[in-house]
Amino acid sequence: MIIVLKENPEQKQLDNLVAWLKSMDMEIHYSQYGSTTIMGIIGETSMVDTELIEALDIVESVKRITEPYKNANRKFHPKDTVIEIGPVKLGGGNFAVIAGPCSIESMDQVCSIAEEVKEAGALLYRGGAFKPRTSPYAFQGMRETGIEFLLEAKRRSGLPVVTEVMDVSHLPLFEEVDVIQVGARNMQNFELLKELGKLDKPILLKRGLSSTISEFLMSAEYIMAGGNHKVILCERGIRTFETAMRNTLDLSCIPLIKSLSHLPIIVDPSHATGIASLVKPMSMAAVAAGADGLMIEVHNDPVHALCDGAQSLTPAAFQDVMNAVMQILPLAYKGETK
Amino acid sequence: MIIVLKENPEQKQLDNLVAWLKSMDMEIHYSQYGSTTIMGIIGETSMVDTELIEALDIVESVKRITEPYKNANRKFHPKDTVIEIGPVKLGGGNFAVIAGPCSIESMDQVCSIAEEVKEAGALLYRGGAFKPRTSPYAFQGMRETGIEFLLEAKRRSGLPVVTEVMDVSHLPLFEEVDVIQVGARNMQNFELLKELGKLDKPILLKRGLSSTISEFLMSAEYIMAGGNHKVILCERGIRTFETAMRNTLDLSCIPLIKSLSHLPIIVDPSHATGIASLVKPMSMAAVAAGADGLMIEVHNDPVHALCDGAQSLTPAAFQDVMNAVMQILPLAYKGETK
Amino acid sequence: MIIVLKENPEQKQLDNLVAWLKSMDMEIHYSQYGSTTIMGIIGETSMVDTELIEALDIVESVKRITEPYKNANRKFHPKDTVIEIGPVKLGGGNFAVIAGPCSIESMDQVCSIAEEVKEAGALLYRGGAFKPRTSPYAFQGMRETGIEFLLEAKRRSGLPVVTEVMDVSHLPLFEEVDVIQVGARNMQNFELLKELGKLDKPILLKRGLSSTISEFLMSAEYIMAGGNHKVILCERGIRTFETAMRNTLDLSCIPLIKSLSHLPIIVDPSHATGIASLVKPMSMAAVAAGADGLMIEVHNDPVHALCDGAQSLTPAAFQDVMNAVMQILPLAYKGETK
Amino acid sequence: MIIVLKENPEQKQLDNLVAWLKSMDMEIHYSQYGSTTIMGIIGETSMVDTELIEALDIVESVKRITEPYKNANRKFHPKDTVIEIGPVKLGGGNFAVIAGPCSIESMDQVCSIAEEVKEAGALLYRGGAFKPRTSPYAFQGMRETGIEFLLEAKRRSGLPVVTEVMDVSHLPLFEEVDVIQVGARNMQNFELLKELGKLDKPILLKRGLSSTISEFLMSAEYIMAGGNHKVILCERGIRTFETAMRNTLDLSCIPLIKSLSHLPIIVDPSHATGIASLVKPMSMAAVAAGADGLMIEVHNDPVHALCDGAQSLTPAAFQDVMNAVMQILPLAYKGETK
Repeated sequence: MIIVLKENPEQKQLDNLVAWLKSMDMEIHYSQYGSTTIMGIIGETSMVDTELIEALDIVESVKRITEPYKNANRKFHPKDTVIEIGPVKLGGGNFAVIAGPCSIESMDQVCSIAEEVKEAGALLYRGGAFKPRTSPYAFQGMRETGIEFLLEAKRRSGLPVVTEVMDVSHLPLFEEVDVIQVGARNMQNFELLKELGKLDKPILLKRGLSSTISEFLMSAEYIMAGGNHKVILCERGIRTFETAMRNTLDLSCIPLIKSLSHLPIIVDPSHATGIASLVKPMSMAAVAAGADGLMIEVHNDPVHALCDGAQSLTPAAFQDVMNAVMQILPLAYKGETK
Repeated sequence: MIIVLKENPEQKQLDNLVAWLKSMDMEIHYSQYGSTTIMGIIGETSMVDTELIEALDIVESVKRITEPYKNANRKFHPKDTVIEIGPVKLGGGNFAVIAGPCSIESMDQVCSIAEEVKEAGALLYRGGAFKPRTSPYAFQGMRETGIEFLLEAKRRSGLPVVTEVMDVSHLPLFEEVDVIQVGARNMQNFELLKELGKLDKPILLKRGLSSTISEFLMSAEYIMAGGNHKVILCERGIRTFETAMRNTLDLSCIPLIKSLSHLPIIVDPSHATGIASLVKPMSMAAVAAGADGLMIEVHNDPVHALCDGAQSLTPAAFQDVMNAVMQILPLAYKGETK
Repeated sequence: MIIVLKENPEQKQLDNLVAWLKSMDMEIHYSQYGSTTIMGIIGETSMVDTELIEALDIVESVKRITEPYKNANRKFHPKDTVIEIGPVKLGGGNFAVIAGPCSIESMDQVCSIAEEVKEAGALLYRGGAFKPRTSPYAFQGMRETGIEFLLEAKRRSGLPVVTEVMDVSHLPLFEEVDVIQVGARNMQNFELLKELGKLDKPILLKRGLSSTISEFLMSAEYIMAGGNHKVILCERGIRTFETAMRNTLDLSCIPLIKSLSHLPIIVDPSHATGIASLVKPMSMAAVAAGADGLMIEVHNDPVHALCDGAQSLTPAAFQDVMNAVMQILPLAYKGETK
Repeated sequence: MIIVLKENPEQKQLDNLVAWLKSMDMEIHYSQYGSTTIMGIIGETSMVDTELIEALDIVESVKRITEPYKNANRKFHPKDTVIEIGPVKLGGGNFAVIAGPCSIESMDQVCSIAEEVKEAGALLYRGGAFKPRTSPYAFQGMRETGIEFLLEAKRRSGLPVVTEVMDVSHLPLFEEVDVIQVGARNMQNFELLKELGKLDKPILLKRGLSSTISEFLMSAEYIMAGGNHKVILCERGIRTFETAMRNTLDLSCIPLIKSLSHLPIIVDPSHATGIASLVKPMSMAAVAAGADGLMIEVHNDPVHALCDGAQSLTPAAFQDVMNAVMQILPLAYKGETK
């Protein structure tokens, strides 16, 4: 970590800063460039909150030279992480598509779509039981019952299942769920992340709407710091000034994250764009860019699908996406050859 | 709500849409403009998620003509809400400053700052016991003990206290806390909002980093829909492309929110800018624009203050801000005279 | 266009609005939904600036139901535009890569890279003579001399050339240039766009850093309204909160723009990311998503390349990108089958 | 400037970087922190484009320790710049309001509003002759004739006038104009900035929609590097994800820019918000935060005002804003006392 001091820093404040850094066992080196003093800090700098230092009167700016995440860092774990979900592998060259309805509505619906997406090649099944909704007046999901239906679909189809948790107190309901999803709005729900870190179960962590890649990896680090290293990252669009799509899908984060971290990363083109007709081209692009998987909304009943998220594809349209994606997969970006 | 259909919409999809809207008791009116069909929807449209309709193949776009929030809406509650916190009033012409350290570190610290900010004119005392930190390796706050210290400061100083909750399961610890703060990262933690809606206690709701004003008011609506109408809104900066400050303080949201809602709104210039020297001018500007209060970080011990959020002011600097702010207050914007 | 009026609009202001709309030959229809009045406007609404109406006291909101662009609109020109540049075709199924150095530095450099990129499969050659630089102290390009060098490279290699114009007054120098590029910072330099509309030469229009897709197409419309229909759109990243890359490449704009407009659209992954190692995966993703071409920075001399934009690839790395891209091309997204 | 190298940088690339830096007379110092090498660069680093270095394969990151602007830098010019415009002073404690119609429509209109805003206390008169419009089909301004009308209003009212230039080629028409405005879309029209640097006339430089504060000051530096030091900065809102207002007014940039630069800065609340009712509170807030002036749209004829930018105030409403603002002015933020 490098701290650039302002000219003529107040001595007392500087002493405080130095004392605080030393209290955390940091080693401090000074360099002088003209009238500018630079402090080089060596030690366990991941413990240090740079925002706090940046806000000091005597400090011009702060720059990390090592990433604040360790468990998620490729530098210390050069090999790709492979997540095993029952018989399914994801990451490290193993590609998997997660598909299913945005929200679970009935036993029939959830079980029949499971068969259809399995048929089309999905390896994991998703369905929403707890639904984060902007409005308190909108349908909040079937909750407990939804999870029961999803587990029945798992039993019948044999597909491992993925579903979103919204609160620590609901975790007991997720025992038989194969992958627990953390939604974009909860990416920095740190108490929830800590609890998930105690589990021995894969966590699908969605990138927050306005989260930087560094914050995204730090949230993965929260889970991993607790001992659970089975984290699947999911890019699902970021919030920008553009209003033509729901969000702006940031595909460049795939190769960039792969250079920074060994964790697998998948893409959710359905939520990212909010437009059904963009799901196919964005799925194709995500795979070409090296994504380890996709998460796609599929419904089979147009009436209910409406309330379901109409970025959904029909099973037939999903099959079409799978065909296109599977053709591109062997040609996809594999990372830099070194 | 107005739905603009694409040209030649598929009849089956249109029938589904109509059936779904009617199932929610909506009345539908059609207008034809050239080749474009427009559906005007009348009814309890706050129940309808526009994103779902927007994503339909047959729909060009959707536009609400009534806001989706009701309890928070000034149209239905023209009079300013006044929040009573012990002897303190906030809103409807009652201005109050909340001050105190970002994080609680010792009984001494928390009790002595309380006296100092009270002296300077703060009416409410804040201190962080549970700290949301980007890094799992950074100090996470004193938690239970921190709340005990804060309550002791309340007893000694007589100031009502404000502190942040991070998880539903911690709520029992907040019984004697006067105002429960919801942090920016939890603005859309809907399960938490629902629980807070069951309390009879003021909630200080911070705007999310990338939340629109409409989403901000919808989160207030979550709390109010549960029966708790004591919501104080807090603007604390939004995330933009600009990196010179931590966030971009959006002061125009003050008069805009006041035109949309009867809820009081305060401003946190410390977190918004992350730069101590900007706290004074931004406090002055916020008051001029009509803010109902301010929330300012104050520390008294420079060494500990470091880990505390160095956007903090010393008690002397805080006194200086209070003086400047109190001079502007009588001249501040009072809303449109009609 | 739909205008939603506020409740009880002031009659005088409403009369003014109506008079103004009628002065532009608009037809006005009224609908009443509860207490809300909606005006449907039919006519040549592309002449009407919605921001002006939106800002009126009596207006709640405005919504276009037809796009404000006509020449660029696929609704009126369903067939893909194919741009012919000498022997090269771009658009409508014709894919072309533009490559070359960011800035022209010597006759040798510009002529030798031309041969190398031609060898690797580039169909068009680019090189910067006029360089937009944030700092007045940075190298501003070789200007007139640079264009001479570029034209010599054109003669020797046979490749048509692309270079950026920065001011109307420089246009006489561009007579033998095959494609004139408008940079992101000039996307709304309307006087320049008007002049380019008078030419009979392809224009490569880059999307502005913070331009919406609608504004992007309106800038194309400026050129086309003058009579020059040879516009090639270029996505080159938008400015967001994310700082890990220079900009956020918005690949979802490719299929979306193709649904709105018949104009070809290419992608510049070099400038978008500012990171050489991301050029290959983002090129592959862009092609998979249906881009009509790519614009890639290539240099051959590492020392000069430094000042040149180090997102550049060497000719060997460019060849590697071309190989990867050409394999994906036959499998790329072709638009919706209807 | 500090360059953090990646581990084990390729020697040849490092040699190239060093050679290039030395060719610009930079002095290079090395520090080693663990396995990380840091290069400290001393010299005229404003010539060096950090983006180019950042994009190098061997470079982890780059950090300036001195700002890239010199003429605009308060470090080298500690005293506030005072701009003299005829009898009017702006900056360094001199506050001035610029008011007038967004677009000039007739001799009558432009002359009568001039009298009205003068009456209300405006010291400078603005009116748009050349109008940047998103649509080629919208009214583009009266152009030459508009400037003639504006100059007549200047003669009659005695107020110095401000109007926007859109292209270098129009500059001859601006000879008698007192202040030339550069619009937000032209903030990085570098050829235009260079030409304005050759004049001896105040330039009102508006911040670009997505320009950082550093880029804003670099654009001022372009003008100043040419010899024209009479630059007035103008904050007019930045583009963010928020759509409730036209743009997000960034008032924190006022005290921040004042700490970085000696140039005066004013605020345009009309364009920033696009909502007439927000002009008053945002004017009050801007003044409280220490703005050196305001730029406010005023019209006197509601019919024409419509096409004029309906964020306009009537002369009576403008008088009301002036009254409020003038009361706050003596209490406004004056910068840090040191």
